[in-house]
Order: sequence, then structure tokens, then C-alpha cells
Amino acid sequence: MDDKLDRATSPIEGVALYDLKVFSDHRGAVLHHLRSDAAHFHGFGESYLSETNPGVIKAWKRHHRITQHMAVPVGRMQFVLFDGRPGTATSGNVFTCVLGRPDAYKLLIIPPLVCYGFQCISDSPGLIVNAVTHPHDPNESETIPVNSPAIPYVWG
Amino acid sequence: MDDKLDRATSPIEGVALYDLKVFSDHRGAVLHHLRSDAAHFHGFGESYLSETNPGVIKAWKRHHRITQHMAVPVGRMQFVLFDGRPGTATSGNVFTCVLGRPDAYKLLIIPPLVCYGFQCISDSPGLIVNAVTHPHDPNESETIPVNSPAIPYVWG
Repeated sequence: MDDKLDRATSPIEGVALYDLKVFSDHRGAVLHHLRSDAAHFHGFGESYLSETNPGVIKAWKRHHRITQHMAVPVGRMQFVLFDGRPGTATSGNVFTCVLGRPDAYKLLIIPPLVCYGFQCISDSPGLIVNAVTHPHDPNESETIPVNSPAIPYVWG
Repeated sequence: MDDKLDRATSPIEGVALYDLKVFSDHRGAVLHHLRSDAAHFHGFGESYLSETNPGVIKAWKRHHRITQHMAVPVGRMQFVLFDGRPGTATSGNVFTCVLGRPDAYKLLIIPPLVCYGFQCISDSPGLIVNAVTHPHDPNESETIPVNSPAIPYVWG
């Protein structure tokens, strides 16, 4: 997978992956996440963090309205995305990527209606920082069973 | 210090501290940070993370324009704030607080022109998640020496 995925090259329409900068020294690090003046900024409704224990899979989820801007500052996470939208050029496609430092500190953008799931693949908990375009609304998303036959991916 | 500090009770005008929710189970946790529909939301310009190694002090910093919304999802951090603004009712005041889970997962709001610094007081690196009202601009902030006599606080 390319270091930088944009709309033109993405295997799933609207999904993008951008390199993020980390400035490290002996004192620690500053890690970029999202700027409102970035071309790929879709708006801000809420920011939150999701911590996942080693080995745990959280899948599948699908949002109807929000676009997500995710990065993994701590630990290492496997992401799997599925385009179940009818009528897109990439319908039926699966996209996988691993996020984590130092080699894969990147911004993953997930548009509405794309199914996604993730698994912590580090020995310590993985932390996702996420900025989404609208404040959390439980009626705006749905959960799909992890073993749903509608999604052509089997979690390991 | 109260669990919830608002403008009316803050020892420094404009500084506030709000409880944040954490939803934990055996799989991990979801940690709130900031919602755009919160009464204390000051706007979104950028989100980033700052990781500080154990024992390291980063002080002092003062921003001219941005308001900050900080929380500590990983590790434990000592914060010290100083009101060096002339003409405020709280001018000259120092405010200290410790942020970290599980007892002090809170949102710290720092307005422009208040000096601040922090130290990692956990055995592992501390992580600050911060949302600020304007994208980073190096000309918008200043650094003040950690031992400046202008600030009545001595770092341990």
C-alpha cells in the first residue's frame, strides 16, 4: 500500500491515507493529527479516543453521516474497510492497513457508509484518536456482526 | 481542587476543568474529549498529541490567540498555570492540577495569554491530546525560560 493514498488512487471511494508528522526529541514527541486548513479536513463535530486491548477485534461498524479522521499514536492497529455501497466504482472492495508508530503514523479518512473494523495487534493497548464531523449520535450508526457473510473478510 | 471548575470558581479567569466520561469494558475504553456542541467549546483549528517522557518538564509557554482543550488519556501529567495578565481579577495567581486516568480524566481549558507548563509524573510517557482554536502558527506563541523569576513557581 502506498504511503499516501488519495481519492484518485484509493481502493475505496472516499477513503484516504495521509502521512502525519511526528517531531521527536529526548523529551518526547509532538504528533500531528488534523488541521482545519488541510485540504482533507471534512469538518469538526467531536474528538474522542478509543483504546483497544491486545488481540481484541471491534467490528463491524457503519456510520450514515459522519466522516472520520483517525490516527494511532500508541500501540498498533489493523484496520479493515469494506465498501458495501451499491453504485460506487469500488463497491465490493476491501481495504486493509496497519496504523502505528513509527512507520505508519498516518491519518485514515473513512467516509460515511463504508464498513470498518479494527483489531489491536500490539502487546499493549492500542489507542485511536479520532475526529469526526458531527457529535456522537447513537442513531447515526449501525453495528454489523463480526462474522457477517455480507462482508468478504474473516478476522484472524 | 473541585472536580468541576468553571469560570465562576476558577482561580484563573478563563481556565476551566470539566469531568470527561470514560466508557470501559473488557475490550478497552472509549474516552470523550471535546464536542462542538459543548457549552465550553471554543472552536476547532487543529488537534494534535504531545508525548512527554517520565520526569521531563516542558515550561513555560504562552499563546497569544489560541484557546486549548487538553486531556491526558495515557500516563499522568502535572500542569501549572500562571496568570501573568495585567488587569484580570486573578492576575498573579498560580493554578496547579494533575491529569490522568482513572481519577483525573478531565478537560483542561487554557485561554490565550495564560502561561502554562507541564511535567510527566508517571513512570511511562504521558500523552496529552489537545484541540486548539486555530491551526499551529509559530508566531502566535512564545517560550519563557523554565526558571523565569517572573513566574512564582519552582518546578520540582
